[in-house]
Amino acid sequence: MSQNSFETLAHPAWLPERVWEHLGRRSITLISNSTSDPVLKTVQRELLNATQRWGGTIREAGPADITFELGAEPFISSDKYTNLDPATAHESFEVTAPGNAAPTALHVRATSPIGLLYGLHHLVRFGDRAFSHPPKNVPGLLGIHAPQQPVRMLNHWDNMTDHPVMGTVERGYAGDSIFWHNATLRSDLSRAREYARLLGSLGINRISVNNVNVHEVEARLITDGVPHLRALAEIFRAHGVQIFASVSFAAPISVGGLETADPLDAQVRTWWAQIADNIWAHIPDFGGFVVKADSEGQPGPFAYGRDHADGANMLAAAIAPHGGELFWRAFVYEHRQDWRDRRTDRARAAYDHFAPLDGQFADNVIVQVKHGPLDFQPREPISPVLAAMPHTRLGIEMQVTQEYTGQQKHVCYLGPMWFEILNFQPWGDAVTLADIPAGHGPGGQMAGLIAVSNIGTDKFWTGHPLAQANLYAYGRLAWNTRADATELLREWITLTLGPGDFTDLEQMMAQSWRTYEDYTAPLGVGFMVQPGHHYGPAVEGYEYSPWGTYHFADRHGIGVDRTIATGTGYAGQYPAPWRDIYESEETCPDELLLFFHHVPWQHQLHSGKSVAQHIYDTHFRGVEAVADMIATWQNLTASVAAENAEFAQRVWDLLQEQLRSAIEWRDQINTYVWRMSGIADAQNRTIY
Amino acid sequence: MSQNSFETLAHPAWLPERVWEHLGRRSITLISNSTSDPVLKTVQRELLNATQRWGGTIREAGPADITFELGAEPFISSDKYTNLDPATAHESFEVTAPGNAAPTALHVRATSPIGLLYGLHHLVRFGDRAFSHPPKNVPGLLGIHAPQQPVRMLNHWDNMTDHPVMGTVERGYAGDSIFWHNATLRSDLSRAREYARLLGSLGINRISVNNVNVHEVEARLITDGVPHLRALAEIFRAHGVQIFASVSFAAPISVGGLETADPLDAQVRTWWAQIADNIWAHIPDFGGFVVKADSEGQPGPFAYGRDHADGANMLAAAIAPHGGELFWRAFVYEHRQDWRDRRTDRARAAYDHFAPLDGQFADNVIVQVKHGPLDFQPREPISPVLAAMPHTRLGIEMQVTQEYTGQQKHVCYLGPMWFEILNFQPWGDAVTLADIPAGHGPGGQMAGLIAVSNIGTDKFWTGHPLAQANLYAYGRLAWNTRADATELLREWITLTLGPGDFTDLEQMMAQSWRTYEDYTAPLGVGFMVQPGHHYGPAVEGYEYSPWGTYHFADRHGIGVDRTIATGTGYAGQYPAPWRDIYESEETCPDELLLFFHHVPWQHQLHSGKSVAQHIYDTHFRGVEAVADMIATWQNLTASVAAENAEFAQRVWDLLQEQLRSAIEWRDQINTYVWRMSGIADAQNRTIY
Repeated sequence: MSQNSFETLAHPAWLPERVWEHLGRRSITLISNSTSDPVLKTVQRELLNATQRWGGTIREAGPADITFELGAEPFISSDKYTNLDPATAHESFEVTAPGNAAPTALHVRATSPIGLLYGLHHLVRFGDRAFSHPPKNVPGLLGIHAPQQPVRMLNHWDNMTDHPVMGTVERGYAGDSIFWHNATLRSDLSRAREYARLLGSLGINRISVNNVNVHEVEARLITDGVPHLRALAEIFRAHGVQIFASVSFAAPISVGGLETADPLDAQVRTWWAQIADNIWAHIPDFGGFVVKADSEGQPGPFAYGRDHADGANMLAAAIAPHGGELFWRAFVYEHRQDWRDRRTDRARAAYDHFAPLDGQFADNVIVQVKHGPLDFQPREPISPVLAAMPHTRLGIEMQVTQEYTGQQKHVCYLGPMWFEILNFQPWGDAVTLADIPAGHGPGGQMAGLIAVSNIGTDKFWTGHPLAQANLYAYGRLAWNTRADATELLREWITLTLGPGDFTDLEQMMAQSWRTYEDYTAPLGVGFMVQPGHHYGPAVEGYEYSPWGTYHFADRHGIGVDRTIATGTGYAGQYPAPWRDIYESEETCPDELLLFFHHVPWQHQLHSGKSVAQHIYDTHFRGVEAVADMIATWQNLTASVAAENAEFAQRVWDLLQEQLRSAIEWRDQINTYVWRMSGIADAQNRTIY
Repeated sequence: MSQNSFETLAHPAWLPERVWEHLGRRSITLISNSTSDPVLKTVQRELLNATQRWGGTIREAGPADITFELGAEPFISSDKYTNLDPATAHESFEVTAPGNAAPTALHVRATSPIGLLYGLHHLVRFGDRAFSHPPKNVPGLLGIHAPQQPVRMLNHWDNMTDHPVMGTVERGYAGDSIFWHNATLRSDLSRAREYARLLGSLGINRISVNNVNVHEVEARLITDGVPHLRALAEIFRAHGVQIFASVSFAAPISVGGLETADPLDAQVRTWWAQIADNIWAHIPDFGGFVVKADSEGQPGPFAYGRDHADGANMLAAAIAPHGGELFWRAFVYEHRQDWRDRRTDRARAAYDHFAPLDGQFADNVIVQVKHGPLDFQPREPISPVLAAMPHTRLGIEMQVTQEYTGQQKHVCYLGPMWFEILNFQPWGDAVTLADIPAGHGPGGQMAGLIAVSNIGTDKFWTGHPLAQANLYAYGRLAWNTRADATELLREWITLTLGPGDFTDLEQMMAQSWRTYEDYTAPLGVGFMVQPGHHYGPAVEGYEYSPWGTYHFADRHGIGVDRTIATGTGYAGQYPAPWRDIYESEETCPDELLLFFHHVPWQHQLHSGKSVAQHIYDTHFRGVEAVADMIATWQNLTASVAAENAEFAQRVWDLLQEQLRSAIEWRDQINTYVWRMSGIADAQNRTIY
């Protein structure tokens, strides 16, 4: 691949031409007064392409198989409309079956072009099912469709230069950045355009375009780089996606030449205001900023004796006049911890830093909280911060890029994990975690979901072709967190791989996160990974490190005592009933036992097995499941390869690596437990 | 520092102007028929500089305080001369006190210029002692002085380009290469000249100028790079040092464009012969080649089903017509071992590969054997290969660069370790390990010592200023392996830091290797280091790696069973009595116990302590010793800083790092042992 152009066509992901057929061969009418809106133009272009390709027609007016209507009026079924939140109403659409045309004629209506685009993709996803039955008999087809989360965002951890350790995409496993190359915007932005279209089809409405770790070149994105941001905004605007920049809190010094970045300093405030004025002058619909401050070495307000609210509100004030939003990350902890100090608990850090600031953040600040208290492990409890700040707009941050979940070399479909997280009930009642940013939490504050993207210049976008399903599922869950993760997987498979029997693939992928959990760090203990790159097992890799990630295994037992009674007190950061459930070894769920408790190797789980035996069993089982995946894929290869031999081969090759890696995980963890505990495997399998 | 010139003066190491005073203020006569010899010119220049600086005189002839005489005749005390080996006779010199001039007049006589240069530095080292007493009362001053080892070599692991992982000097801790920059020879070779002078003063007579891991650019050193080699040869020739190049065994393919590098292929043999012809045509006194073959990924004869003798002899044949020597490294092992496989033992590898080939290597091949079976750990037994190949010229390879011994951040004077190694008695009789390359082993084959250099562009040459002592001691031990390591240390201190009471420094440095051993991996077990960079502790860092470096610790015990009876059989590679001594837990020396045996944590050492208690005690003691070093240096700072404040400060700063690091070692290892063994410290000190 040459440096600035993409010589191979990217894989179409879930939007191959085929998926447009059922629309493209029909008669379609698009009713709208507007002509110049870029999103409406996207709708027009998609319809034109589809009908040209598949022989359908676009009519100026009159009866048609499908009518798309952009109207100023509220939705027809106005009783439901009153329940739509203003924050998401403009992104909503309604599908009706008027019945006065053909029995299957459909009418899609929205009050804004983006609603119409989402309605269009709603029909794309249904495929021919939308027309092969009476519409009212197709579950989920008709009615008003509104996104649950106002914010449906992706963060790109893309560097503008090739970082010597992190590369062009930090924690990226799919090639280089599609945006940046050699410290500037790529001249060939074709992949960005295709990506924008893919995101629009899912309902993603915000992206940040550079790494939250802001290096020297990227710090100037808000000054020298405004033309780049403007070019990207132009591309993404057509798909309803706003552009954000990650900024360095120290930019007043490093970029502006001031002597301080103190958020209460008048010069600093003025500097940021001028920065904002200039950006919005060039990009009137610019989104705002993302900030990682006082975190893992990034600068922040602590240097000036200010707190995170001071820091965030100063930036928020600069962008508020333009309607900008500020995403302020809560991923703050002591990353130079002393492993000897067992009182300091990294899991406590975000709560300890942020919960006392509840209610102090400006209206246009969204505090962006990782879903778990540590860092995107395959299994963590939810972050107690999310239940502790009712008067703050809280975004839930997730990670589509598979940093700790197989790095897009392992099949690990994260939909089920996210579903569990988003539907967790922090107070043990009907309110779910996702309800909080959706505005249905105790304080009614609205925000949404944010996730780290998993794409790059790789032909298949995501390195592992099946990792596309994670991006897909994230977008769809952000729209509706109650969507069944397996249903979403089925959607992705059908769109991407086409008709055929992919039941086995669906089962294999649906189970793959639990399989990954089986063969990696057990029972919620986390972080048994190779330091630095985080791929592959190293049981003691982080045990004596400064990163605050320990399991404290010894000859007697393993796990972190985070109880109120005898531990770090972290369990007490949860509201009831979870503080009590987690506090007790008896009630703590098995899968989080070692996250909350230090227990003997002989400790009996709810399953009746000892901790040691559980580890042996899950690790043998996990490897067997990967071997089964290989058999499954072998059976599927012919049907996949018919459409895309390279797709089939890539998955096949990576499955071999997954098996090798899973065996390594199994053997290292089992051997470690055996050496430590001396407990023999009840089934007498080989432990080295 | 600009890229190609050195803007700061290098520290003079052990040759500051001061050390020339006692010669420079005297009358000196140099008698020689030769005028053009480059080494003789060096002698002349040194004498001229010294007398000009210190007010002495150089006389054409006649009586003088000191007479240097280059004569064709054998030494005056010819009865001893007959015992001089021809291989080293030309490098020898004789010091007499004729007594017909002043009572202290000295006469230095040699049959070659290099002998005269060595004689000159012999007098430099004695300082004023050579003149302040009757010469015959100064121990070691008079008589015939001949090097014990014919080969006294340094290997430079210098890359011509900045390797992304290894930098410009692989395992270098003292800046960049003084030879190479940006894929070519530096234009400023002033440091190379100073270095050559330092080496000549020690008696080093060979260096290889590029890394044994030969990368793409360096592979062409033998073709495109000949002018570079020639320029370096010109510099080092004046100090009696021959130049060698490390070559890639695959060069016939990668450089020559042939389809094979098979050592038995006629084209390959012709290609190498032409390469050699060309090099020697330009550099008539070129030394030869160093080869790392079939080792850690480097190409070698195995690819063609040939053995190491086939490979080495082919290259040896190409260079034999020119008198070239081939250094062929025996550091061959499976570096992609499976940690699950406890039968494969990396320690066995060199013997298994090379011992069967004894007698098959050509006369101009020197098999270069690391002193221990693994890789320059702070404590290893000697390599059994050295006692197993009587009909082969064996060089003992040591490591001056402190890869595993503190990386020139820790004070770790290696003289005592090398003395122990070189004076080890492989057969339990009077024959020492060093006697083997000195030609006094069972087969009478001669070779010498080879060591990896520790210098770079750093102002002090070695990063840690006190690490100069290691380079000094290596050179002096290569001349005489029976030299007392503490005496050599005293020489270095006196030369480098000048007059004054440095007894405390001497004691601190003399103990520093054992102190380093105290606070790092215990009882010969080795390799508890951070993977990759090898600095700092990681008790399980190499435990599940492919590198063949395991300690197999579990809740019951620790160590590698290398016995004949129940282990890998490695102990059986030694001749009696060591095979029996190492075989038994009762007789195996404590310091190597875990190298040879897997024992319970409660196992009682000869000291009466349990293994666990020994580990606790040595680790607490080691840290205390480092704290004492800091106190010692604090007392010394004034006297050192008077001459060189930067020297004093650098040592001070690095001692803080050594203390921090030693504490980390102590705590990680003690905690690991405590968690594994559950054995409490008898003294109840803090273990985390």
